[in-house]
Amino acid sequence: MIEPDRATLFTDSRYTFQARDEVSGATIRIAKRGLLREAGESLRVSRRKRLTVGFSPAYLTVSQKQALESAAGPRVRWSPSGNEVERLRAIKDASELRLMKQAAAIISGVFESLLPKIKPGMAELDLAAEAEFAMRRMGAEGPSFETIVAAGPRSAWAHARPTSKLLRKNELVVLDQGAILRGYCSDMTRTVFLGRSSRRVRQLYGAVLEAQQAAKAAIRPGVEAGQVDAAARRVFAGYKLDRFFTHSTGHGLGIEVHEPPRIGRGDTTLLQPGMVVTVEPGLYVEGFGGIRIEDDVLVTANGVMDLTTSSRELFEL
Amino acid sequence: MIEPDRATLFTDSRYTFQARDEVSGATIRIAKRGLLREAGESLRVSRRKRLTVGFSPAYLTVSQKQALESAAGPRVRWSPSGNEVERLRAIKDASELRLMKQAAAIISGVFESLLPKIKPGMAELDLAAEAEFAMRRMGAEGPSFETIVAAGPRSAWAHARPTSKLLRKNELVVLDQGAILRGYCSDMTRTVFLGRSSRRVRQLYGAVLEAQQAAKAAIRPGVEAGQVDAAARRVFAGYKLDRFFTHSTGHGLGIEVHEPPRIGRGDTTLLQPGMVVTVEPGLYVEGFGGIRIEDDVLVTANGVMDLTTSSRELFEL
Repeated sequence: MIEPDRATLFTDSRYTFQARDEVSGATIRIAKRGLLREAGESLRVSRRKRLTVGFSPAYLTVSQKQALESAAGPRVRWSPSGNEVERLRAIKDASELRLMKQAAAIISGVFESLLPKIKPGMAELDLAAEAEFAMRRMGAEGPSFETIVAAGPRSAWAHARPTSKLLRKNELVVLDQGAILRGYCSDMTRTVFLGRSSRRVRQLYGAVLEAQQAAKAAIRPGVEAGQVDAAARRVFAGYKLDRFFTHSTGHGLGIEVHEPPRIGRGDTTLLQPGMVVTVEPGLYVEGFGGIRIEDDVLVTANGVMDLTTSSRELFEL
Repeated sequence: MIEPDRATLFTDSRYTFQARDEVSGATIRIAKRGLLREAGESLRVSRRKRLTVGFSPAYLTVSQKQALESAAGPRVRWSPSGNEVERLRAIKDASELRLMKQAAAIISGVFESLLPKIKPGMAELDLAAEAEFAMRRMGAEGPSFETIVAAGPRSAWAHARPTSKLLRKNELVVLDQGAILRGYCSDMTRTVFLGRSSRRVRQLYGAVLEAQQAAKAAIRPGVEAGQVDAAARRVFAGYKLDRFFTHSTGHGLGIEVHEPPRIGRGDTTLLQPGMVVTVEPGLYVEGFGGIRIEDDVLVTANGVMDLTTSSRELFEL
């Protein structure tokens, strides 16, 4: 709870020692009767005459809000905060960027270390396990989301969870993975082909790569996020493939793996130096397969810089 | 959305193919303008005169509720559901129990496979990586929560995230890990000692094990969850150790790793056959270390059955 003259971290007894060790700049309150109840009660006994308290409606559940309200009593006016906190978080400072670059370097390294292991007969789940194991070996705390490995027709599922399905020859394999380093996320996708790819696969792959390059080329300070999405979409429309691109072009990245801005249709957020976003166009053809290429990029004063660096050429393994 | 005569799954275009493949018993609606907006709008156009719609306040955020409300319009009365869904989920049927037993067997197997690897000089993070890798190798989808490995003084942090700290001789190591198998969670903790344990360690360990056995012995249908917690607490009080037991004795387990009931002070839920809960007393002494022993147990018609089966003796490695 942040007040004009002080900040308080409410936590419970499981975290007593950890809070003492890790928290600075805030008083620690070990709540014995529920975090929200004690936080609310501390507002009730405040000596201020009138209190307006901002809260994040996108994070607080209806139950949590009720617990806070009933503990705080009727004197408090509750003011939904909108995206103020997310807006502050969208622009990364130098120390945050250092960690995000490292998290991106780790995930690039993980992908490259996996390449010799991706073979027909391996299960999607085993490849996901290898990926997450490698992240930790390289110093990450763990994956920033459940690693996606989807092969063959399943690669057309943009958010497939890995299964015991075995990789087979002449299949596309989508690997979408991210690592957390000291709280900061990376998120990178590459698509490989097991065997010699067909002309159709190479055409689709080429269109995705071209769409990604067009989106990156559209990024610079002052551009609306939606214009970056439109740049990718225009490339697909030129090849009459736009109906196979079923999601947004990207999203902000930071201490969460999905943060504002959304690089999607109609998002009017103006890009600013210090923002880190993903650029991840894809094509998904049911029964055939899917292709996605995703990088994390930093908006710079003049344009854009890749944080994830693995080759974007089509690997035939 | 469940209505008297039909059920609808709202999802987005990323999941078009997956929904078609996996969903039965519900109509699939691929929302293009936001899930909650389209779900709300489908209520607005309903031909029913008056609508009362239940919702889960513990899962819906304040923003999501507002989006639903404004899309549905003023004709809908919103009724918070309380714990009805969780109450239904608390009692596991035969097919759920089969999966939970398997998930518990996997995590017991993971622990046993790690024992020969736990050695001074290994980082907490490496041990966590080995644990999660082993889960997947044994058929789990992945960990049911971020694996906890905490060594030495850090073992006194009940919910420590693993760090690059190296394990050292003469330290306690707490391993708290769980696996997800086809959507169902397990959750098991064991504490090991690197070297020959001191009398103090053995005394504390013995008290935790005795408290765990007392709690398990208190479990049978018709008993209040709070009484199980009290049974563990009484053992600690007998050794004047109760102030070092800083959390609840356990919690329900199922498709989430924390579900009702809470095996904690004052919880009046009556235990019923088919419930699966954790029993996990612990002692945390700052500067010295922590000890926790946790099993998943099934409430049976007559008492209790362990699902996690690894030995609870103090391993000196």
